[in-house]
Amino acid sequence: MREIKIFSGRANPRLAGDICKFLNIPLGRITLGEFPDGENACKIEEDVRGRDVFLVQPTCPPVNNNIMELLIMIDSCRRASAERITAVIPYFGYARQDRKDEGRVPITAKLVSDVITAAGADRVLTMDLHAAQIQGFFNVPVDHLYAAPVLNHYFQALNIPEDDLVIVSPDAGSIKRAVSHHRRLGGRLAICDKRRHSASDTTQENIIGGPVEGRTAIIFDDMISTAGSICGAAKTTFEAGAKEIYIAATHGVLCGDAIARLQAAPIKEIILTDTIPHQSGHLLPNTKILTVAPLLGEAIKRIHNDESISAIFREDFGAFQG
Amino acid sequence: MREIKIFSGRANPRLAGDICKFLNIPLGRITLGEFPDGENACKIEEDVRGRDVFLVQPTCPPVNNNIMELLIMIDSCRRASAERITAVIPYFGYARQDRKDEGRVPITAKLVSDVITAAGADRVLTMDLHAAQIQGFFNVPVDHLYAAPVLNHYFQALNIPEDDLVIVSPDAGSIKRAVSHHRRLGGRLAICDKRRHSASDTTQENIIGGPVEGRTAIIFDDMISTAGSICGAAKTTFEAGAKEIYIAATHGVLCGDAIARLQAAPIKEIILTDTIPHQSGHLLPNTKILTVAPLLGEAIKRIHNDESISAIFREDFGAFQG
Amino acid sequence: MREIKIFSGRANPRLAGDICKFLNIPLGRITLGEFPDGENACKIEEDVRGRDVFLVQPTCPPVNNNIMELLIMIDSCRRASAERITAVIPYFGYARQDRKDEGRVPITAKLVSDVITAAGADRVLTMDLHAAQIQGFFNVPVDHLYAAPVLNHYFQALNIPEDDLVIVSPDAGSIKRAVSHHRRLGGRLAICDKRRHSASDTTQENIIGGPVEGRTAIIFDDMISTAGSICGAAKTTFEAGAKEIYIAATHGVLCGDAIARLQAAPIKEIILTDTIPHQSGHLLPNTKILTVAPLLGEAIKRIHNDESISAIFREDFGAFQG
Amino acid sequence: MREIKIFSGRANPRLAGDICKFLNIPLGRITLGEFPDGENACKIEEDVRGRDVFLVQPTCPPVNNNIMELLIMIDSCRRASAERITAVIPYFGYARQDRKDEGRVPITAKLVSDVITAAGADRVLTMDLHAAQIQGFFNVPVDHLYAAPVLNHYFQALNIPEDDLVIVSPDAGSIKRAVSHHRRLGGRLAICDKRRHSASDTTQENIIGGPVEGRTAIIFDDMISTAGSICGAAKTTFEAGAKEIYIAATHGVLCGDAIARLQAAPIKEIILTDTIPHQSGHLLPNTKILTVAPLLGEAIKRIHNDESISAIFREDFGAFQG
Amino acid sequence: MREIKIFSGRANPRLAGDICKFLNIPLGRITLGEFPDGENACKIEEDVRGRDVFLVQPTCPPVNNNIMELLIMIDSCRRASAERITAVIPYFGYARQDRKDEGRVPITAKLVSDVITAAGADRVLTMDLHAAQIQGFFNVPVDHLYAAPVLNHYFQALNIPEDDLVIVSPDAGSIKRAVSHHRRLGGRLAICDKRRHSASDTTQENIIGGPVEGRTAIIFDDMISTAGSICGAAKTTFEAGAKEIYIAATHGVLCGDAIARLQAAPIKEIILTDTIPHQSGHLLPNTKILTVAPLLGEAIKRIHNDESISAIFREDFGAFQG
Amino acid sequence: MREIKIFSGRANPRLAGDICKFLNIPLGRITLGEFPDGENACKIEEDVRGRDVFLVQPTCPPVNNNIMELLIMIDSCRRASAERITAVIPYFGYARQDRKDEGRVPITAKLVSDVITAAGADRVLTMDLHAAQIQGFFNVPVDHLYAAPVLNHYFQALNIPEDDLVIVSPDAGSIKRAVSHHRRLGGRLAICDKRRHSASDTTQENIIGGPVEGRTAIIFDDMISTAGSICGAAKTTFEAGAKEIYIAATHGVLCGDAIARLQAAPIKEIILTDTIPHQSGHLLPNTKILTVAPLLGEAIKRIHNDESISAIFREDFGAFQG
Repeated sequence: MREIKIFSGRANPRLAGDICKFLNIPLGRITLGEFPDGENACKIEEDVRGRDVFLVQPTCPPVNNNIMELLIMIDSCRRASAERITAVIPYFGYARQDRKDEGRVPITAKLVSDVITAAGADRVLTMDLHAAQIQGFFNVPVDHLYAAPVLNHYFQALNIPEDDLVIVSPDAGSIKRAVSHHRRLGGRLAICDKRRHSASDTTQENIIGGPVEGRTAIIFDDMISTAGSICGAAKTTFEAGAKEIYIAATHGVLCGDAIARLQAAPIKEIILTDTIPHQSGHLLPNTKILTVAPLLGEAIKRIHNDESISAIFREDFGAFQG
Repeated sequence: MREIKIFSGRANPRLAGDICKFLNIPLGRITLGEFPDGENACKIEEDVRGRDVFLVQPTCPPVNNNIMELLIMIDSCRRASAERITAVIPYFGYARQDRKDEGRVPITAKLVSDVITAAGADRVLTMDLHAAQIQGFFNVPVDHLYAAPVLNHYFQALNIPEDDLVIVSPDAGSIKRAVSHHRRLGGRLAICDKRRHSASDTTQENIIGGPVEGRTAIIFDDMISTAGSICGAAKTTFEAGAKEIYIAATHGVLCGDAIARLQAAPIKEIILTDTIPHQSGHLLPNTKILTVAPLLGEAIKRIHNDESISAIFREDFGAFQG
Repeated sequence: MREIKIFSGRANPRLAGDICKFLNIPLGRITLGEFPDGENACKIEEDVRGRDVFLVQPTCPPVNNNIMELLIMIDSCRRASAERITAVIPYFGYARQDRKDEGRVPITAKLVSDVITAAGADRVLTMDLHAAQIQGFFNVPVDHLYAAPVLNHYFQALNIPEDDLVIVSPDAGSIKRAVSHHRRLGGRLAICDKRRHSASDTTQENIIGGPVEGRTAIIFDDMISTAGSICGAAKTTFEAGAKEIYIAATHGVLCGDAIARLQAAPIKEIILTDTIPHQSGHLLPNTKILTVAPLLGEAIKRIHNDESISAIFREDFGAFQG
Repeated sequence: MREIKIFSGRANPRLAGDICKFLNIPLGRITLGEFPDGENACKIEEDVRGRDVFLVQPTCPPVNNNIMELLIMIDSCRRASAERITAVIPYFGYARQDRKDEGRVPITAKLVSDVITAAGADRVLTMDLHAAQIQGFFNVPVDHLYAAPVLNHYFQALNIPEDDLVIVSPDAGSIKRAVSHHRRLGGRLAICDKRRHSASDTTQENIIGGPVEGRTAIIFDDMISTAGSICGAAKTTFEAGAKEIYIAATHGVLCGDAIARLQAAPIKEIILTDTIPHQSGHLLPNTKILTVAPLLGEAIKRIHNDESISAIFREDFGAFQG
Repeated sequence: MREIKIFSGRANPRLAGDICKFLNIPLGRITLGEFPDGENACKIEEDVRGRDVFLVQPTCPPVNNNIMELLIMIDSCRRASAERITAVIPYFGYARQDRKDEGRVPITAKLVSDVITAAGADRVLTMDLHAAQIQGFFNVPVDHLYAAPVLNHYFQALNIPEDDLVIVSPDAGSIKRAVSHHRRLGGRLAICDKRRHSASDTTQENIIGGPVEGRTAIIFDDMISTAGSICGAAKTTFEAGAKEIYIAATHGVLCGDAIARLQAAPIKEIILTDTIPHQSGHLLPNTKILTVAPLLGEAIKRIHNDESISAIFREDFGAFQG
Repeated sequence: MREIKIFSGRANPRLAGDICKFLNIPLGRITLGEFPDGENACKIEEDVRGRDVFLVQPTCPPVNNNIMELLIMIDSCRRASAERITAVIPYFGYARQDRKDEGRVPITAKLVSDVITAAGADRVLTMDLHAAQIQGFFNVPVDHLYAAPVLNHYFQALNIPEDDLVIVSPDAGSIKRAVSHHRRLGGRLAICDKRRHSASDTTQENIIGGPVEGRTAIIFDDMISTAGSICGAAKTTFEAGAKEIYIAATHGVLCGDAIARLQAAPIKEIILTDTIPHQSGHLLPNTKILTVAPLLGEAIKRIHNDESISAIFREDFGAFQG
């Protein structure tokens, strides 16, 4: 069986290192940098001929640099005769540009999918895509993971009594995700609703379902970008009488005024994963980062060994967390 | 300028004929049929060399036959040296298979997109795609039309007083569409809501917004397939006290028990368009079919003349209906 | 070595089952069906990651449904990370649309070849193609089997004395096939000839070679579709004094008036294979169906094990029949 | 309308020149040659940017040099921004390698089709392909001409009385061609038959149809390569009592012992076209070369003007010959 | 004739504006920016359907952002049905990564070429590529311009007497360029030589040819990046007695310590073009920026009108400078 | 592990045989020839299904025949289900046509790269490419070998004292190669310089570095084609007082007047390798042919075993020569 090799781009080397620790293999040696004019330089420092190569690179900010670095790593491995190249993209940037909702705009998510394939990736491993249809933008196989087990495992360990718990969807579009967490965690289910109730343009947030009052609320989203929408939901939930509010998301982009907004919002704890790297100094004290390294590591192992990925999600994944 | 030629597959020849009438050009002569073993036969009966060819074929049931016929027509035109081939697909079948929500299933909408391109289509003209991301499944240009102006024009002609009107979304996923109609038609806005209010598996429909009581309701959806969901919404709306209920959708697939369900539901009128052909005997007496032929015809004319498609939707489209 | 997995479309599940019995492996579990609107549904029910997958689907009538189902199965397996996908197409439909003999017609056999490749098939296994050039329509490897050994084995078991036997070609275009059978079975060789003998447009069938009189005749063709041509040949052979007439073909499409024509013709026995499924009630009592399952099974085994396919035809294949 | 430009490779510059004379346009200036190591050099000596370019190059012997020169000319024109490149291949070499009739052989005709497309040809214009299925080897449009009108025109001018004429097919595989000429030229129809009449391996030629005795026979084939088969047919026809024998073919490859065989055969006149160049000193005195330049020129003009090619063959083509 | 439209990315909008002024057409309206997370946003603000679109974007630093923006603009135009898209890349970044000179490195110049094509560019217009072979990395047509006429025109206007002038090549690899300028400008020719004269590793610069002493020297290069090499050449030339030294290059990347080095070097004037934008405050006072806008404008006009590009370089290009 | 199979085209069967001897495996059986009309015939005579196939064919003169034969062999192996096909091209013809240095010429090296890929080669193994950028013309992996160790090994065995030795570059463009040999072989380094020293068109060769006088000179080049340039360098070196002159090159094309020029030049020994076959009668008596078979064999073995190729060049390769 061909050997496995994992290399990391510069977007999230710590995650790649943790994946390798989980798999008990050394991280592949690679030299990445820039020439004086800012062009990326890349040299794979160990043999990849005939190997099963995984390149770990979330395409988080700086998104264009991270995408180009990923492409250059793929090109290097292809020309160095890697047997198979899997682009491991824990966070898939540009995912919101997935359709033309007006004339003369790009579908950048498709463009990025196309150039990853053009560079020579044989397959993709990604996590919590903003729109599931992006899988169809690829013709190479895509393995799509969910961070939900990692998040659920964290909350289960908090031992919040079912009577005390309410799972809150921050808007109508995220109900499916909330229902899915609710199945695992129990408690009540509520939706934070921002929709128009009349022909006027004014919107008013209110809570459907629940009740929320006096309970511990957990608001789930796929990503926190400028944090405007989830902080609004937290405020509505708080005003509806919630005792404590947790917010949880897979991808913590935290750009623009996110930190200020999160600081101002009535939030007890912010739970994120490490698909995107976080500098400890940059984060609020009430932020908790969970790792998806074991999840990605397990998926890489199964891809390498031709074992089912969907089976991961049929069992309790908590064991990976200890 | 190269000449325009429009040919129709057998899925909806009447629509193609009406498009040609709108454009004041003859429908292209083509012989379509089956060999005794059921294989499709096709012969384009007039010269298409260097022409700007449009092939009208919604991929409605029988979907596989209609797709294959479209592919064969494309192949015939490509090999006969058509300058440009536009697949005009007023209803795009298989659109709901647009993602992998479980392991080992196809993304058939992408597959169909790929084979249409592989057969040689240079561009696609379609209408009210079930998911906007399907545009990104193509790398050839896709012009995506909305039937909304046609439906709105119909309801505006009914002169329902604003105080009397409520636009109803049949579920949370269709709110955007309802809002868009509401902007044009006025009145109140309501959502027929089927979501879980607790951890139990029981669902209960209720109305958000409105009020609905004593008003004339219009429920909009993109397509009516088995009619289960829209008839449920009509029942809920009716029970909430609506005076009269109209339902309206672009694509009337009307399969399975659709007719029986529609007959049993408290619906005054069913408004559909002719993207999919309807046999008059098959329809309920309270069904009204609006034509999208002028809309498609105008789009074809603009594609042919290199004029903006999005401009169509910036003006009042009612003029095309006279 | 990667594991073998065989799945069957709905065109001929019995053949696929028999192939698996020959190979002593279970038929792969797959759910195939239609949504209420007639769109195909597909779910592979067992893991195919890294497996060597064979999808058995003759593209016999209903040809378009069978082609689409094959494409959807291929798409499912590709996206589920099958290592290699072989489309096993015992009967390749649309094979007669293999050239443009007039302007503005399709080359549907090429179109079908292209879409099978576009869907993701890595190779093709087929049998008795109507035109050998169709192999060149593919750039993926095509393994092309001949059912002749199966048919010959049947006739050898009849122990017709050589002096009593005459092999008849139903027309000039099938001589090569008749000669090939004649080499194995012995006896005399005759051609049933329909060609013009003068400038007039009248045609007259007669027998060249033979003699046919008083002998047992076997007429071979690659497929029986409407049976018009082979029944004409049987009649001519009968009028020339043949004692008994067998007709044999690999593919029994039997469409249009085929059954009525065969019933009316002076034929002792009709020998077909099971590349296309036959409902027992539908067939005439004098029809004998031979199985090609061992032949296909042996080919699949050899493809899987990287062994020569052409070697199959250098030995006596009869052993597979017992 | 973009301008037409015709360039000739070195395979048959005289034919290209005659095409240009017919079209009354100058032959495009191009420098072709070899570097000292035998590598082809090419420089297009006039601007082709945005032009409609036709490259005339039959792939006759030396076949590999002629193919490579064609590819290099295509590459030059593509990189020089020609709007459209049509490969005009009056004789398509390697056409007999169009299928795999045994294991581990190439399908060279498909390979050549693929590399012509890979080099950048937008379309192909060819004549009397050995197998019509080769059109399907291309996905770019192929215009396929027939030299039959040119040959028929020559024989009509001979004014052979219908009672005196017999059209002879040299073998069973060429009957279709003979019938087609017979429809135009009249007289009787005969087939020179070489097929086995029994189980023995001996073959015996004889004449079917006719009668031939005392008549003027014309034997038609698509190409004369080593001339073995057509000279055998001529001998058989002569022994059957034909008064005079003409043989006619589109492509005169005349390789191996062709000239010696033709000299020894009982043939009054050999009629060929100029798809392949002929050195006058090399030909027998009884050889007549007809030109297809007007036919190709007319096709080029129609391709350029987007007019029907098939229409050429519906009218009497004789006018082009004067 | 389809209309011309020119849009600028954000790399060098001033150059694009100057091109439009030269062509006397308005610069196309486009909105470019970033979302809060740094992902590029793009909207073409005027209709491009059927237009001949030129997208001006040198891929200078920040190179990855500029490449991605170019790709996104191409995608937008393709999906908006532009008839033809020309990527105008006055400076082609990553050009020095054009080969593998050691194992396991990328060929990034090829990768960038591939993704530009994958995004949908129909052709490329570029200038003074670092290696001419990069043209072969594309299969779409590449028009390759030379800035030499612009530079020569500047120096001719200085009226340096021929007896006083020496053209200096900064190293052996640039001789061809120096010779070419020398042909236009006259004077003497010298090479600044850095090569090893013995087996020792010490290098020593010296001047070959000339003489340089007492003369005005012009040192030409294709690009000035960190300025290390050209400043070394200037020093050597100065030490060899040159009276005054000009340095001239098409592409002024000026990264790393370039400005400090240039300031310290014995250089009278630095002549660059505006392929890469220069902030006036950033440049040394003795820097002169020449514009290539007329040259690019003329090329765009000729591409649009299907006129020869190479003809530009056969005439005196000075007229464009006035 | 899949089995290795090596087949030889007819360009250099002796080299292929020697490679197989080095690897201790039999040369694959293949029948290559021409049909009477000069079309290539090919039949692989042993099973290649699932094998790791290497096809040895330098594209030396007759270059077009050798390229076509290589393509046909690739096509045969692909259609016969080879697992992987490596085109082993020890000498890559058409390498000097690698850029457009004037308008309307081909980039034939790219064209050849494209057709080799289109035919189905999975990878390329080549040696001493004329321009390293040609690696980027391929998207399949290219392993690029250097013959330098073989040449160096020969000269080391001559035991020329370092004080007596001078390595001469025949022109400025080959300095890099000379330096590389000089590092291994020691002695002095000199450049034979042909460059213009003034504005006049006269060129004068002289020697830079050295000294050459009284020493044994070795002049290295990548290929000797017409030998004009290397014989000029030998003459200059001789006139500068060299005691003895060796010339050495990887590829001995030896076309045009090469032999006559070499005979007339003051050369002691001509050292070539066997990438291109040499007929012993054709060579001058002072020619020595070194074999690269062990080098190619070692690379093939490492490709097959997924071992590093670059490692070959880090060790002393002399051992392969014994």
